[in-house]
Amino acid sequence: MNKRLKIGVFGFGCVGQGLYEVLHRTRGIKADIAKICVKDRNKKRSIPLENFTFEKDDIINNPEIDLVVELIDNADEAFEIVSSAMKKGKSVVTANKKMVAEHFNELLTLQKEHNVSFLYEASCCASIPIIRNLEEYYDNDLLTAVEGIINGTTNYILTNMCKYQIPYSEALAKAQELGFAESNPYLDVEAFDAKFKVSIITAHAFGVFIKPDEIFNYGISSISSYDISYAREKNMDIKLVARSKRNNDSLGVWVMPQFVPSASKLYQVLNEYNGVLVEGVFSDKQFFLGKGAGAYPTGSAVLSDISAVTYNYQYEYKKFGQESRPEFTNDLEVEIYYSYRTPDELSKLPFSSVHEQYTGREYCYAIGTTTIEQLRKVKDSIPTDCFICLMPEKSF
Amino acid sequence: MNKRLKIGVFGFGCVGQGLYEVLHRTRGIKADIAKICVKDRNKKRSIPLENFTFEKDDIINNPEIDLVVELIDNADEAFEIVSSAMKKGKSVVTANKKMVAEHFNELLTLQKEHNVSFLYEASCCASIPIIRNLEEYYDNDLLTAVEGIINGTTNYILTNMCKYQIPYSEALAKAQELGFAESNPYLDVEAFDAKFKVSIITAHAFGVFIKPDEIFNYGISSISSYDISYAREKNMDIKLVARSKRNNDSLGVWVMPQFVPSASKLYQVLNEYNGVLVEGVFSDKQFFLGKGAGAYPTGSAVLSDISAVTYNYQYEYKKFGQESRPEFTNDLEVEIYYSYRTPDELSKLPFSSVHEQYTGREYCYAIGTTTIEQLRKVKDSIPTDCFICLMPEKSF
Repeated sequence: MNKRLKIGVFGFGCVGQGLYEVLHRTRGIKADIAKICVKDRNKKRSIPLENFTFEKDDIINNPEIDLVVELIDNADEAFEIVSSAMKKGKSVVTANKKMVAEHFNELLTLQKEHNVSFLYEASCCASIPIIRNLEEYYDNDLLTAVEGIINGTTNYILTNMCKYQIPYSEALAKAQELGFAESNPYLDVEAFDAKFKVSIITAHAFGVFIKPDEIFNYGISSISSYDISYAREKNMDIKLVARSKRNNDSLGVWVMPQFVPSASKLYQVLNEYNGVLVEGVFSDKQFFLGKGAGAYPTGSAVLSDISAVTYNYQYEYKKFGQESRPEFTNDLEVEIYYSYRTPDELSKLPFSSVHEQYTGREYCYAIGTTTIEQLRKVKDSIPTDCFICLMPEKSF
Repeated sequence: MNKRLKIGVFGFGCVGQGLYEVLHRTRGIKADIAKICVKDRNKKRSIPLENFTFEKDDIINNPEIDLVVELIDNADEAFEIVSSAMKKGKSVVTANKKMVAEHFNELLTLQKEHNVSFLYEASCCASIPIIRNLEEYYDNDLLTAVEGIINGTTNYILTNMCKYQIPYSEALAKAQELGFAESNPYLDVEAFDAKFKVSIITAHAFGVFIKPDEIFNYGISSISSYDISYAREKNMDIKLVARSKRNNDSLGVWVMPQFVPSASKLYQVLNEYNGVLVEGVFSDKQFFLGKGAGAYPTGSAVLSDISAVTYNYQYEYKKFGQESRPEFTNDLEVEIYYSYRTPDELSKLPFSSVHEQYTGREYCYAIGTTTIEQLRKVKDSIPTDCFICLMPEKSF
């Protein structure tokens, strides 16, 4: 306990370099980077070459390395690295939400079998310590909901669209230029990134693991200026909101665009920031706000996990053992705004009832109720110039 | 580890009753209340009489009770109870900020000597898990500042004064009526309550314990409608802000009223809510918002601590062992707004320089620099119809 850790790092991109700098400027933490494994032998590096290796076995098979920090993009390769490391008795810290969400049960088994720490705070909301708080602090308080803006890329785009009337494509280009969006933005803008995160958050909030495939996600790429105008006229913004909400014994989990009224705490979450509301029966709503992306915020979350490993901290997944776990369902009624271009497109969305309908020359919309299960079923057949948005709920 | 705890509770006021209800509606936590010790034999109770005892030894000397939850008002009696309990090998959970702040070192020694858990999350900001986050999560991240609104009573009063132009005495009466202020509001409105809290927060943030006596506190009881008007004209509110801020190797800690611009996150903290900004070099500012007072929010914080005791959780006070601890000083320059009634009162505040001065028939003010040490020295000799307020700093 509390010895000086030797770390092997995989990946030296934005987060890896952030971690390197954060670790070197932090005096209190008993850990040093022994080696960094990268792929590209020819890429110019910002630190001396002797820090690097190109063979992953130099880290995995090195018995002096206690901890592997995995910061590469590819989820399959990451899983390969992480599972080899745990099998060798090494603890692991990762920021890879896709890998954690897609291999959740296998990773749980591995960490138990090999009695190692496996921590992934940086995988959700960068600098906001949401997993640790759900895991350690909100384990008893009749938690009812976790809801938030957990993807910085889409929030940056939507902030620009709502506040400055910048069109989608331009806002996306700006996000890419500033490094808030990747050159292929698919995982972010189609809400897969947020879906992986809400799957992980739900596990720590309610002790229920839901495969990402079962969670409804709908992104923002088909949003139009008509939708933004509709929201602005009503003093609302459109935000991509992830929700994991308990209602008695059932649990609804999804990610989709949502109208957010100006009185909501989530309305104040701007640009690359993330914001999470944690709702308990007794604690009321708690709001956590912080930078949701970037080298330093993510690096600092990785560092908090490294520090926790020096104290042998492990997630206990206590809630998985509790009796009163809710049951996940997509069979939940929701009130939806659906915008489309020509009247014949209305039928693409299977409303159980429609309360409002507007038909214009270039833009139509309908507001009505349907279920998450219905939305999941028809999602891929909805025309790409149509848009779905959840109607606002009561605010904080 | 993880056995079913037997709890002895001291006090059955607002928080005690909140805890009782919270605990009875929570299924996951392995703890039961064995006895509740109260003073008044004749007071009517909301639960059956067999739950109560009037002798504290019925709890302290009962070997079956593992955990004492201390929820009484009187700090001296509380210390007596808490230290007896620890000496008997019992863990302790308390919400008593005055006791914790005034006996910090003794309480640390006791918990180490007797190897028991001593937890007090509920003593600061009720439902916001600030101590746990500082203790567990921000232990490495070159923390630079913790700043916030940590007293619900004064925030309720100031919100009413700033937003609805209600005079101080009326706002205070309203707070008392709603149970947000005690019949004797001295500790809250003169910023002693917030001072105890910031002393505790500073210990967990920076590993430095500062006796409350050494911390400058200045309250809100002498605020006038002129001060509120001055703030409102400049699109600011006045808030009672506690600050613990590191600047290289020195540490400044105080509580006083401060002008808060509308762009600051703290501006959005209204009524009985508390809001805390945690600033790190790498994580940037994190913002925590939640209810800072009330039976349920405080009860739920007590319950989180009880739950932590079932897992043998103890604060480790890691930062007290770190090399790079900053040194507390009151010798720090600050920019101060000082309002007074007659020109001769200007000299009561020892400015080192004055940048702005306004003289009117009933209201005058000066803005200039002085030090916290100077303010501490003259605090008690400043006329009660004068008011001191910190000028705004750069916002979040």
